Amino acid sequence: MNTAGESFRTIWLSPDDPAIVQIIDQRRLPHDFVIADLGTWRDGASAITNMAVRGAPLIGATAAWSLYLASIQSGGAAGPVIEAADKLMATRPTAVNLRWAIERMLGVMAKLSDHDDLIGRLRAEAQAICDEDVEISRGIGEHGLPLLEAIAKRKDGETVNVLTHCNAGSLATINWGTATAPVYLAQEKGIDVHVWVDETRPRNQGSQLTAWELAQNNVPHTLIVDNAGGHLMQHGMVDICITGTDRTTRSGDVANKIGTYLKALAAAANNIPFYVALPSTTIDWTIHDGLAEIPIEQRDPREVSHVYGRVGGNTVETLTVGSDTAISNYAFDVTPASLVTGLITECGVCEASEVGLAALFPDLARQAND
Amino acid sequence: MNTAGESFRTIWLSPDDPAIVQIIDQRRLPHDFVIADLGTWRDGASAITNMAVRGAPLIGATAAWSLYLASIQSGGAAGPVIEAADKLMATRPTAVNLRWAIERMLGVMAKLSDHDDLIGRLRAEAQAICDEDVEISRGIGEHGLPLLEAIAKRKDGETVNVLTHCNAGSLATINWGTATAPVYLAQEKGIDVHVWVDETRPRNQGSQLTAWELAQNNVPHTLIVDNAGGHLMQHGMVDICITGTDRTTRSGDVANKIGTYLKALAAAANNIPFYVALPSTTIDWTIHDGLAEIPIEQRDPREVSHVYGRVGGNTVETLTVGSDTAISNYAFDVTPASLVTGLITECGVCEASEVGLAALFPDLARQAND
Repeated sequence: MNTAGESFRTIWLSPDDPAIVQIIDQRRLPHDFVIADLGTWRDGASAITNMAVRGAPLIGATAAWSLYLASIQSGGAAGPVIEAADKLMATRPTAVNLRWAIERMLGVMAKLSDHDDLIGRLRAEAQAICDEDVEISRGIGEHGLPLLEAIAKRKDGETVNVLTHCNAGSLATINWGTATAPVYLAQEKGIDVHVWVDETRPRNQGSQLTAWELAQNNVPHTLIVDNAGGHLMQHGMVDICITGTDRTTRSGDVANKIGTYLKALAAAANNIPFYVALPSTTIDWTIHDGLAEIPIEQRDPREVSHVYGRVGGNTVETLTVGSDTAISNYAFDVTPASLVTGLITECGVCEASEVGLAALFPDLARQAND
Repeated sequence: MNTAGESFRTIWLSPDDPAIVQIIDQRRLPHDFVIADLGTWRDGASAITNMAVRGAPLIGATAAWSLYLASIQSGGAAGPVIEAADKLMATRPTAVNLRWAIERMLGVMAKLSDHDDLIGRLRAEAQAICDEDVEISRGIGEHGLPLLEAIAKRKDGETVNVLTHCNAGSLATINWGTATAPVYLAQEKGIDVHVWVDETRPRNQGSQLTAWELAQNNVPHTLIVDNAGGHLMQHGMVDICITGTDRTTRSGDVANKIGTYLKALAAAANNIPFYVALPSTTIDWTIHDGLAEIPIEQRDPREVSHVYGRVGGNTVETLTVGSDTAISNYAFDVTPASLVTGLITECGVCEASEVGLAALFPDLARQAND
């Protein structure tokens, strides 16, 4: 990801102090580019809770680095790190690879003897989680790219219009993104690609994050309100939808940012392919029926009643609602597999179904059955 | 409509000065209740253009009163009034009963002789348009009420959950509203009714107008982002959708606020009835295919990039987007008749189809065929 010409990841160990992890404070975008220091595991937990970092892969990486910070705080003792892991696990119940990253870090700890360097091992593991995530995103991009190439070919070089919801971009991962990875690679290949960016109320991750990172990387894009996608699809202005996901069931049901389901319905009604891009770590092999089995968290009503933005030179939270109105704020919805054309993973593209996923990930599917 | 215990319409002749028409400045809601004076026809045109008034019936009434004001300005001469009518016609191309109201006023003028009192006749006609609209809204309410009564009966008195989009309430009409009229009547009848209010980006007519007027009238309601309705419908939390419309084709296609189509898709996918409430004046008998024939206006990108609200004691417009992002702002979309369970009009409920509409309005349908 480029920002003002410099190449960035979303989380990294400070080059100046190995006891400090640094992140881009995503709450300040697009108005201010602010780097925040995490000095304790609680700083990491807060960054997840208050959404300074968000996006399934980045949440996992932040939890991993937080456990590294916990090990520094404990002077290398395991007990406090395990306690921190418990607390971190509770920060975002819907995010399946928060659990995955924490369990991976705990797995490393479980294999250590008393003489081993806990701090060094956790540092190496957190770094490995990040490096692998970058490779996973690139893999998603490479497997998704042919979908965009095929549309470009069919349209004889005319603009390929992609619609995306929320931010499944570089900012949601360590780099490249999931839904955006094919787009970035297509642009590198010289394909004329344009992205319709859903604003993504209530937190505006589309207008504040996706639009920002596409602009930083010079990808042509247009911001729309969440209400507009159906109209665009009715009028042939969308060639393909690609979103991310927080959690995918073994049957291919997709939990993602609230509103994803509405776009999938519109895509199906207008014969537009609807793809979901995901690292295989976000597949939850323990559940089948997303609608029945995935708990949907309700978040702070203030996300709905107040809008973050800039007035003059100041950033403010603007109240948009009268005082006598109740507010409900479901954060995610579930798109049934039947509405998903395919899943784009780091290992290839497959049908959104138990059969499709099992063919692409035979070992994981088999393990889950044991 | 009640406001702080007082009963209000949305537009009225000033009781103190018959050359002044008064409106509620809807741009200031929900934070401030401000009454604005219209002293010239250009004031009326501005009120329509800048959305101090909005909603198909109220726009028509405002245009009618504006022509009355034009006649005062011209000292009773017809020429300037006809010129004003031309200019008013261009303020909102999608609003079919803007045209209807203006043509009705011009029709009155055409029948006058030189000795007649132009000003007095236009005043009486504008007043009649308003009084009739109140009766139309009540009629819509009375015909829609049995739909809610039937749900209440089926649910054995449990809460009837209505979802609505945008503001098709009292504030969009002269009183009672269209989509809200059955709700207000149901509440009067003691039915336990609750309304899910779509925020309705980009202008937030749901959060700023519908929620406000429901609160003023003590109707239980909950504000949701536009993205949430699909999730609620998947989980049985919506019993019926009722929206308004700016323009309905003779085939029953419905042009309404952008995003209506997405809710209709979700309702159809979840077997939830989707009704559209409309005065028969918003039926455009000249067109069949809404998708092909209704021009969709694009409005100012600033509606998307800036959000109106309150910070501390001040009302502000907050910028939510970075500077390098293009914005598209389609104001309406078209919901095909196939997704509409029925149309609720002042003359009864009918199927959203040419056959349904012709059965309910045989004379209008016949005239259109001539």
